[in-house]
Amino acid sequence: MIAATPESCRAHAREALRRCRELAACSEAPDVTTRTFLSAPMRDVHERVSRWMRQAGMAVRIDAAGNIRGVYDADPARRGRAAASDTRRLFIGSHLDTVPNAGAFDGVLGVMLAIALIEGLAGRRYPFAIEAIGFSEEEGVRFGMPFIGSLALAGSLGATHLARTDAAGARVDDAIRTYGLDPATLDDARAPAGSLGYLEFHIEQGPVLDNQNAPLAAVDAIVGQSRLEVTFAGAANHAGTTPMDARRDAVTGAAEWIVAVEADALATAGLVATVGRVDAVPGAVNVIAGRCRATLDVRHADDDTRHAAVDRFTARAGEIAARRSLAATFETRLDQPAVPMDPHLTALLERSIAAAGMPVRRISSGAGHDAMVVAACMPAAMLFVRSPRGISHHPDEAVHEEDAAAALAAGALFLDALAESSGG
Amino acid sequence: MIAATPESCRAHAREALRRCRELAACSEAPDVTTRTFLSAPMRDVHERVSRWMRQAGMAVRIDAAGNIRGVYDADPARRGRAAASDTRRLFIGSHLDTVPNAGAFDGVLGVMLAIALIEGLAGRRYPFAIEAIGFSEEEGVRFGMPFIGSLALAGSLGATHLARTDAAGARVDDAIRTYGLDPATLDDARAPAGSLGYLEFHIEQGPVLDNQNAPLAAVDAIVGQSRLEVTFAGAANHAGTTPMDARRDAVTGAAEWIVAVEADALATAGLVATVGRVDAVPGAVNVIAGRCRATLDVRHADDDTRHAAVDRFTARAGEIAARRSLAATFETRLDQPAVPMDPHLTALLERSIAAAGMPVRRISSGAGHDAMVVAACMPAAMLFVRSPRGISHHPDEAVHEEDAAAALAAGALFLDALAESSGG
Repeated sequence: MIAATPESCRAHAREALRRCRELAACSEAPDVTTRTFLSAPMRDVHERVSRWMRQAGMAVRIDAAGNIRGVYDADPARRGRAAASDTRRLFIGSHLDTVPNAGAFDGVLGVMLAIALIEGLAGRRYPFAIEAIGFSEEEGVRFGMPFIGSLALAGSLGATHLARTDAAGARVDDAIRTYGLDPATLDDARAPAGSLGYLEFHIEQGPVLDNQNAPLAAVDAIVGQSRLEVTFAGAANHAGTTPMDARRDAVTGAAEWIVAVEADALATAGLVATVGRVDAVPGAVNVIAGRCRATLDVRHADDDTRHAAVDRFTARAGEIAARRSLAATFETRLDQPAVPMDPHLTALLERSIAAAGMPVRRISSGAGHDAMVVAACMPAAMLFVRSPRGISHHPDEAVHEEDAAAALAAGALFLDALAESSGG
Repeated sequence: MIAATPESCRAHAREALRRCRELAACSEAPDVTTRTFLSAPMRDVHERVSRWMRQAGMAVRIDAAGNIRGVYDADPARRGRAAASDTRRLFIGSHLDTVPNAGAFDGVLGVMLAIALIEGLAGRRYPFAIEAIGFSEEEGVRFGMPFIGSLALAGSLGATHLARTDAAGARVDDAIRTYGLDPATLDDARAPAGSLGYLEFHIEQGPVLDNQNAPLAAVDAIVGQSRLEVTFAGAANHAGTTPMDARRDAVTGAAEWIVAVEADALATAGLVATVGRVDAVPGAVNVIAGRCRATLDVRHADDDTRHAAVDRFTARAGEIAARRSLAATFETRLDQPAVPMDPHLTALLERSIAAAGMPVRRISSGAGHDAMVVAACMPAAMLFVRSPRGISHHPDEAVHEEDAAAALAAGALFLDALAESSGG
């Protein structure tokens, strides 16, 4: 067993957060952090990350999807004893791209903590290799399609993905070539068979841990998502000459439904439902709206619960519309199943959090993460680090140094536990 | 007394509606009716209207504001007996411009019925002159400012109005010159002192008369209007990672308020309140809106009732915002007082409607009309003609021929009654 001292965890955490802030300066835009798939500043990020990986004893390469990958070899002697193939390895990582005007920690923290964890080993080895990975793309900003990096690791990046174009008309494979990589070698980006699993450290990006005063949580699942567009249709009319009781106002119908959706979601444990966009048509101050379109985003860790909620919301819209002589129609834009994290790795993670002296929390991730995509090809686990005040996708995004240190302590214990449980 | 027979009213009504439809073909756009202030097709309208006015015995001119005006002289003998100034005249009219993609009757009907009424006199005279007037502009489409024509009659068209520019950058006085008129002579457009009054026939543009199966109504007032913009401000956040009970969602706050405004207006006699535009910011499907802006249009014939309603709506927004940890702010964009119609002329109009054998209805106009502006310089009255299904500002706008005939019968009796009451 390779134990990490509180002092070394704290020092490595401090350096990891410093590196996050250093990388935040690598940006497409002055004064803010914006870094999309294989954009110019990613080259600078790769140079810095590459140096830190090599210093920690890793062999570094950039794969054809633009993921930076550092392999920290297994202990040759113990690897032999374990009688497993030499591809046995644990992946630890997250993404290096950002949203526009981002904070310094979303994604980047997970890569910096992976490197810090390996640095903390100070050359000591496990019976499996550890591969730190910085995915090239998770946010979906440049091509309106997320997870380019992790899809390549999972072997799921196909011709359709590669043909997507950005605002300038460049395709994904054009961007790969422009960066000096070869999309024909994308197969080399796939995780080898027999990979032990994937661990992702990530900021929570929500207020739950901060409200509970807890630094860490094991993630039990990435929630499933439904996205719909609802349209209430009534009759546009004159705001002055149409008495209240002669109206078929699409806006008031939509408003009644939005209030009902909120009340239902508040009463359903773990459910979130959001109307983020509302458009009244024609949208003039003096015209009763004949149409009102609204978006609906529904998430829950349990797909049946989510589908039942969507059914209630559409039924409720129908009732409201019928009473108001409106028509309500729904179009489903997304129905993405929940992705449970691997129960065995998650249990190891919870034991490691407890062994590090931290309270054990288990929460579902309301946002998508690379772990969701990687879970298709190997066991995956996620550790959330508290987001102060729940702030993310914003320059005020922060991480407490002691929380990052706690994550490293738990991570070190996780490596030990995994080595034991995997016959190391 | 000069009585109109039902047969002659019906024939004149039929011709008036035919003329409305003929003028609908004079348009800036193919296949639809769009005719803004002094646009090219207005020249064609002026030629046709001018011909019909002359045939009815009127002396015609176009004033410097582009209003077409036909004067049907008083009876010289009776005028002398009345010992009044020779400027005694009754104005009857409405406007000849239209909204984009308009129907054939909004405004135009009032001008065609004025001509029809004079045609029905068949040369007979009253002790006052009758001036039929077709205002050049009421809708406010071209310059974002309504009532150019009636403001000129009231002597209220000032330098600020003339300096307003259209989308192409042309000023109102440029448009007047381009049409071949001289803005320096605008004073000639003013109504002479001693004008007896103004009568406007207009389609209701709402469903009230159609729902009551009544052809006509006397208008007691043009309602006052308040227009406000309300902003609910909360905190934008991640739709997946922010639990329902940790949200400060501006959209759900606005929705609760919209429902409350509707319920209040439904419970307040004669009040209409409309939220016609709603904008969520940032307006993304997966982001809880941090701001939600909405417009509010409130109208009532009684200004105190309207102001009290606006006070209740703003107070309610404050309560909802406080309970939801939002902030609600209001900006007043318009606070336009109600304009009562002249009680004496309106009473004459009601007696004339009754004498024509029609049920007497009295309603408030929820929309602005030229009569509102003309009321500033002389007694004004309005007669509403039923709008089938309440449709207006739409190609399906219609008028029943028997309703137009009823309006002409009532109008003829009104002229008789006015002659009696004004010492004729």
